[in-house]
Amino acid sequence: MIVRDENQLHGTERTVSNEQWTSVRMLLADDKMGFSFHITYIQTGSEHTFHYKNHFESVYCIRGKGTIEDLATGEVHEIKPGVMYALDKHDKHTVRCEEELVLACCFNPPVTGNEVHREDGSYAAADEVA
Amino acid sequence: MIVRDENQLHGTERTVSNEQWTSVRMLLADDKMGFSFHITYIQTGSEHTFHYKNHFESVYCIRGKGTIEDLATGEVHEIKPGVMYALDKHDKHTVRCEEELVLACCFNPPVTGNEVHREDGSYAAADEVA
Repeated sequence: MIVRDENQLHGTERTVSNEQWTSVRMLLADDKMGFSFHITYIQTGSEHTFHYKNHFESVYCIRGKGTIEDLATGEVHEIKPGVMYALDKHDKHTVRCEEELVLACCFNPPVTGNEVHREDGSYAAADEVA
Repeated sequence: MIVRDENQLHGTERTVSNEQWTSVRMLLADDKMGFSFHITYIQTGSEHTFHYKNHFESVYCIRGKGTIEDLATGEVHEIKPGVMYALDKHDKHTVRCEEELVLACCFNPPVTGNEVHREDGSYAAADEVA
């Protein structure tokens, strides 16, 4: 059994961040669960375009307020506590944050922890990272 | 892209519950994400022993207070907001709830939605359900 406390992981190597975005990696590929699990904070007023070509991701909103735009269709969905979106078609999307978002994110395949967002908004596949 | 609002799923076929436990299935096997994702409510004062012999599960505490006991070792861990436990060894465990727990749970392989907890605390494997 793995037990981790997010409160103790901020500021450690398990946290990835820039000025507009912080992600705490609670589970990564080497935990061998078959998925990774992250708590991600998105700063008020920021906008992010992602395109996970190599991963499925689900995102559940714990706190905050924003929107997600499906860039293929132009459709915009509200993000608020209780709303989940799942990128089952590797959907390219833009998240806009109105009040700091706290999000519970699952990735399949699991993120290794070494990925960075590339110019096209994707993470590399694990074998490309290796 | 799948978008679902938990607030609209309580009381629907996506919610499984008994007097001490409610689970809202945000994602199931047929969503083809490779994992399932559930928001689970555990009632104050209740105690639950589970043994997911056929699944890996991670559980992240959003709200509430309780403990998890690893029945193989007798070790007891506090559950509070920010704490995650992951049953990477299909660990048999007992959850005790002191204040209503709200938990974000990921299962691999994904739960189909037709499982019930068996006497031994497990869910059947998907092929046993089928």
